[in-house]
Amino acid sequence: MGWRLSQLAERFGLRHQGDDAEIRGVNTLEAAGSDEVAFLANPKYASLLDSTGAGAVILQAKHAGRVRTSLVSDNPYYDFARIARLFARPEGHHAGINEQSRIHPDARVASGATLYPGVHVGPRTSIGEGAVLFSGVYVAEDCRIGEGCILYPGVTVLSRTDIGRRVILHPGVVLGSDGFGFAQGPEGLEKVPQLGRVIVEDDVEIGANSTVDRAALGETRIGRGTKIDNLVQIGHNVHIGTDCVLVAQVGIAGSTRIGNRVVLAGQVGLSGHLEIGDDCRVGAQSGVSRSIPAGSDVSGSPAMDHRTFLRSAALQPKLPEMHSRLKKLESQLSDLRDRLKQKGEDDG
Amino acid sequence: MGWRLSQLAERFGLRHQGDDAEIRGVNTLEAAGSDEVAFLANPKYASLLDSTGAGAVILQAKHAGRVRTSLVSDNPYYDFARIARLFARPEGHHAGINEQSRIHPDARVASGATLYPGVHVGPRTSIGEGAVLFSGVYVAEDCRIGEGCILYPGVTVLSRTDIGRRVILHPGVVLGSDGFGFAQGPEGLEKVPQLGRVIVEDDVEIGANSTVDRAALGETRIGRGTKIDNLVQIGHNVHIGTDCVLVAQVGIAGSTRIGNRVVLAGQVGLSGHLEIGDDCRVGAQSGVSRSIPAGSDVSGSPAMDHRTFLRSAALQPKLPEMHSRLKKLESQLSDLRDRLKQKGEDDG
Amino acid sequence: MGWRLSQLAERFGLRHQGDDAEIRGVNTLEAAGSDEVAFLANPKYASLLDSTGAGAVILQAKHAGRVRTSLVSDNPYYDFARIARLFARPEGHHAGINEQSRIHPDARVASGATLYPGVHVGPRTSIGEGAVLFSGVYVAEDCRIGEGCILYPGVTVLSRTDIGRRVILHPGVVLGSDGFGFAQGPEGLEKVPQLGRVIVEDDVEIGANSTVDRAALGETRIGRGTKIDNLVQIGHNVHIGTDCVLVAQVGIAGSTRIGNRVVLAGQVGLSGHLEIGDDCRVGAQSGVSRSIPAGSDVSGSPAMDHRTFLRSAALQPKLPEMHSRLKKLESQLSDLRDRLKQKGEDDG
Repeated sequence: MGWRLSQLAERFGLRHQGDDAEIRGVNTLEAAGSDEVAFLANPKYASLLDSTGAGAVILQAKHAGRVRTSLVSDNPYYDFARIARLFARPEGHHAGINEQSRIHPDARVASGATLYPGVHVGPRTSIGEGAVLFSGVYVAEDCRIGEGCILYPGVTVLSRTDIGRRVILHPGVVLGSDGFGFAQGPEGLEKVPQLGRVIVEDDVEIGANSTVDRAALGETRIGRGTKIDNLVQIGHNVHIGTDCVLVAQVGIAGSTRIGNRVVLAGQVGLSGHLEIGDDCRVGAQSGVSRSIPAGSDVSGSPAMDHRTFLRSAALQPKLPEMHSRLKKLESQLSDLRDRLKQKGEDDG
Repeated sequence: MGWRLSQLAERFGLRHQGDDAEIRGVNTLEAAGSDEVAFLANPKYASLLDSTGAGAVILQAKHAGRVRTSLVSDNPYYDFARIARLFARPEGHHAGINEQSRIHPDARVASGATLYPGVHVGPRTSIGEGAVLFSGVYVAEDCRIGEGCILYPGVTVLSRTDIGRRVILHPGVVLGSDGFGFAQGPEGLEKVPQLGRVIVEDDVEIGANSTVDRAALGETRIGRGTKIDNLVQIGHNVHIGTDCVLVAQVGIAGSTRIGNRVVLAGQVGLSGHLEIGDDCRVGAQSGVSRSIPAGSDVSGSPAMDHRTFLRSAALQPKLPEMHSRLKKLESQLSDLRDRLKQKGEDDG
Repeated sequence: MGWRLSQLAERFGLRHQGDDAEIRGVNTLEAAGSDEVAFLANPKYASLLDSTGAGAVILQAKHAGRVRTSLVSDNPYYDFARIARLFARPEGHHAGINEQSRIHPDARVASGATLYPGVHVGPRTSIGEGAVLFSGVYVAEDCRIGEGCILYPGVTVLSRTDIGRRVILHPGVVLGSDGFGFAQGPEGLEKVPQLGRVIVEDDVEIGANSTVDRAALGETRIGRGTKIDNLVQIGHNVHIGTDCVLVAQVGIAGSTRIGNRVVLAGQVGLSGHLEIGDDCRVGAQSGVSRSIPAGSDVSGSPAMDHRTFLRSAALQPKLPEMHSRLKKLESQLSDLRDRLKQKGEDDG
């Protein structure tokens, strides 16, 4: 399926400049051919404009003079995303509700949902219109899966989990596993029953093999539009706000509350019972063990202000040298004092 | 199902004070209603006693004067756990051995076990009385699954794994995958066959998507009562003692031996071939590359004594200032020496 | 099945010394019996030669005098691996293509492949000769699985993934999940379609529950012979060279390129868009945020030269002491200057 550049421009409110080529796909500036559209978002790559073979480039007005054919955009990466979606082939090939899926008679599955063979849907669970559940998906009892959700192979959703609309759960995601709670009893650690549940709001995406534990009591909640990468761990009773970004291998301990638009870079760890304010940013591999106010930008383990971290980190390799200089100073000062003392000048 | 407070008191050996209300559930101090019991374990939250709507509170004697109705306990969190268990609904709805489960004719499955459709049980494997295996569970050949175990959806147990009684494996757990062993050969890395196995003792719990590798030779062992959180990696030939606590995303490299009652906080990494003594505690994100004696409390990467770590960590943000002060001292001392030299006072 | 030592020697080009015992297995020096062969690779364990009950020991010529019966090798660990393989029992018990596997009519499955019940193979996908796909494996449309691959239970391979020969994917591995790409749009984060794919070359091994994202455009590639441990995250458009070793819980952000024979120790994190040269080594828990040239040996977060890291790390616990010494120097120097000033000696 092809689109004329003029059609794309009209559909997405862009300015079309140059030939009205037919576009059949998207690609990078380096690899795109004459029937593909590329984009320039990072000015670092502007020099590629001179050599690209792309049929058109999505770019900002200030770069438009450098190519013959373009779609001029205020936000090229966003418009690229929207155009790319036209050419994306959805994963999978099944349609409809396969008769080898295992749907409890008390479940409610919308007629327009897609269920692959081997899918399990428990009693009193509802599956929304347009949802796609791949093979090996297990959805337990008393759950809700909203309209348009995609649950990739091997996703497990345990009882009473509530999932909004257009949520994407990548392969191996686990929602609603027991939180990690134990009480010291007379004969060792006693399991504290985990009686709460998990709520995932609309437009959330959770990466492959990530895990979200159910609350001990009450709920663990992932706010609308939040995006979570692969192998992330969300502990029980954690609340995450809207439009957050959690990069791969982040771990968040129990009962921590995260505001809106927070960005946690890869392998960050947050201790339990913290408050992370809106718009905070936490650098890769950082460890946060204290609450931080809105707008904070922190890094390090333990975390500190990001600019302080950069200066501190730059000195880590110089610690041995600093230590030598310290010793030398001690020696020089000691010598000086000794000599002055010998001369009777320093009677301190 | 409800319980009178007097019944709960008698069942668990607590002192009942106040009305003999009927209790139908458990909840937090903030959220509990008049038919729910809450608990106070952390004195930090004692002020919530004044406003709680809970029908009764499990608390220590010293706080009992602050509420009308209570269950007085020496260990409120533990007694809460025991009472909460009365109200917990177990996950799942199947019972018995589903005819769509795939049981090898040479397997032995106890008549009181629950096997969901799609479960795989290999030859010469035994499944104990009361065990529950959810959909998507794969148990290979020559395994033993003890009485009362719960294997959640998507758990994989590979050959010759031995699992004790009342073990809980959360969704996506992998036991018995090959250890990571390669020998440098003339044409690259050569796989070293992993011929050992995994042994999991009674009352162990392992969190979602955690992985335990089989031994190269001999065994990888998880001791009785040890609790492991989500996304934890246990390398081949690791031995973990009893009643340990491993928080999420911990990684333990091959052949390390961990004593009893050891606590590893989140994202800790242990190198291979170490000895970690009984009752050690390792702080979050720490990296331990040397053996540590029993009772150690360490933090940092590389790990050091925990109190030293706290003092060292507090100085990290001050490194730039320390560096400036060092430079200033050098400059001042140099100036001083120069001036003294000019005056002929310092002939050093 | 047993092997005479003379047979083993001939088969693998080793020198046989002592009795021609029949060998029925392999084991450690401590545990081996008279019908088992052990090995000595690390000279640290040479003292075990005196007490071993092994029927024979694979060792270097310089140690051969210490045991009665041996197989003399230039590379004992490698030769142990080769001999151990003779005694390894492969996982699983099925053979052939089970009729309960779900193979799309447009898929091509070699007649000598093994497919367990419940395996999913999508349209236009090919499964090579000798490949083994366990229960719960999902292979989507337009994939290639090469000859002799093993896909353990619960592996998910999404569309257009290309897997070479003799690749081993341990349980729960996910290949081809969407990369983590979002554009800031007017109403929040907009998903950037992930249109590329994953290519895994021959002889790669990927550990349990590890994840490899498909490229945004183009490909994510794992080079021939590279070995990846459990719970590792490979971002979109990452390229990894040949014969690399990635230890457990490593995370690599998008578009980073890694050379050949690179070793990343456990829990290492690499930022995106880096170049990591051939033969680099990165120490455990390190964080690399800048490109590093071939042959680098780095550690720390942020990473620095490994020897510098060792010296810097050794000083971390001494920071409080350094701080005290700095304060003392400041005080001493200040006192000295004051006194000299009082004496009129220091007119600075």
